[in-house]
Amino acid sequence: MYKVYGMSASGNCHKVRMVLEALRLPYSWTEIDPGRGQTRTPEFLAMNPNGKVPVLELEPGVWMSESNAIMFYLADGSTLVPSDRMQRARALEWMFFEQYSHEPFIAVARYLHRFHPDPPSQRALAESKREGGDRALTVMEHHLEKRDFLVGPRYTVADIALYAYTHVAGEGGFDLGRYPAVRAWLERVEAQPGYVRMPS
Amino acid sequence: MYKVYGMSASGNCHKVRMVLEALRLPYSWTEIDPGRGQTRTPEFLAMNPNGKVPVLELEPGVWMSESNAIMFYLADGSTLVPSDRMQRARALEWMFFEQYSHEPFIAVARYLHRFHPDPPSQRALAESKREGGDRALTVMEHHLEKRDFLVGPRYTVADIALYAYTHVAGEGGFDLGRYPAVRAWLERVEAQPGYVRMPS
Repeated sequence: MYKVYGMSASGNCHKVRMVLEALRLPYSWTEIDPGRGQTRTPEFLAMNPNGKVPVLELEPGVWMSESNAIMFYLADGSTLVPSDRMQRARALEWMFFEQYSHEPFIAVARYLHRFHPDPPSQRALAESKREGGDRALTVMEHHLEKRDFLVGPRYTVADIALYAYTHVAGEGGFDLGRYPAVRAWLERVEAQPGYVRMPS
Repeated sequence: MYKVYGMSASGNCHKVRMVLEALRLPYSWTEIDPGRGQTRTPEFLAMNPNGKVPVLELEPGVWMSESNAIMFYLADGSTLVPSDRMQRARALEWMFFEQYSHEPFIAVARYLHRFHPDPPSQRALAESKREGGDRALTVMEHHLEKRDFLVGPRYTVADIALYAYTHVAGEGGFDLGRYPAVRAWLERVEAQPGYVRMPS
């Protein structure tokens, strides 16, 4: 059985939960709080020397990190990862977009607003994430105006990767009201079999 | 024939050149200078709405962005992308590590030192990238102490992804002398068939 070491309120960790639930794979979840140093212990660093959640334990002593790689591993061979070479690369294109051009703005703004010990002290930094986050949401909006899902006709790991922090972008101060195609897509994701809400 | 729109001195763009050369695929290269606004023109944004190089044109009107997705697309089916499910995910694990935990420190420090119009004004910002960059190099060093390549016994797209900015980390003020296993691995990458040096 898979073991996940993660923080439930983290979008990166929630991606792994969404894939496990969508594929109905059995797993256990161990809650890890990076804010309390739990990703810096020798035990955790043995699992991921980069000191980040989520970590997937495949079997005792075999671990994988990087949320999007974990998703690709778990879903490879299922409909969540396209079998067509071009569509598979398109899914990765969106997943790399997510980690470089979306998460560092939207997830970081959310962290500073909601999880930082002293959010008012972080207002200027959080504000500096606004333009990049809105640019990422605008790229998604234009793409989704003409499509139901990010890649091809089906729900894939790319949708899960982008859903994770987009659906809680409001917690980072972003106004999803400005992105109607994104909001309609969020609802389509939430209607998928096995969809699981982020624990609050 | 593939067309690349890229900046030769960019590690992200050089990854694409390295894969094309390693696979001996014919391509043309159009030099794009983001510093002169060439990624913000309507023509460029039609190719990549996110306004970043590299862009690969697969055929007229069909474009792909995100360096690591482009590499995966070009090399899928070759030995540069492992066919084994676990090793394929391991390659992606390193490629996501590269985009999130390596490039934003090492490539950005190099940019600020070497390409910014006024490097001295950027010294504090460049210095703030030091700790994260050294952490990424340390993760690589420990991994490569026991291995020839990042994933399994062979050279893969993961090696190219990490080589791109690691081999020029010195230009960002990082001391590769502290990372002997990384340096030995850089030499192994440079000994691969079809290896091409970054244009100076």
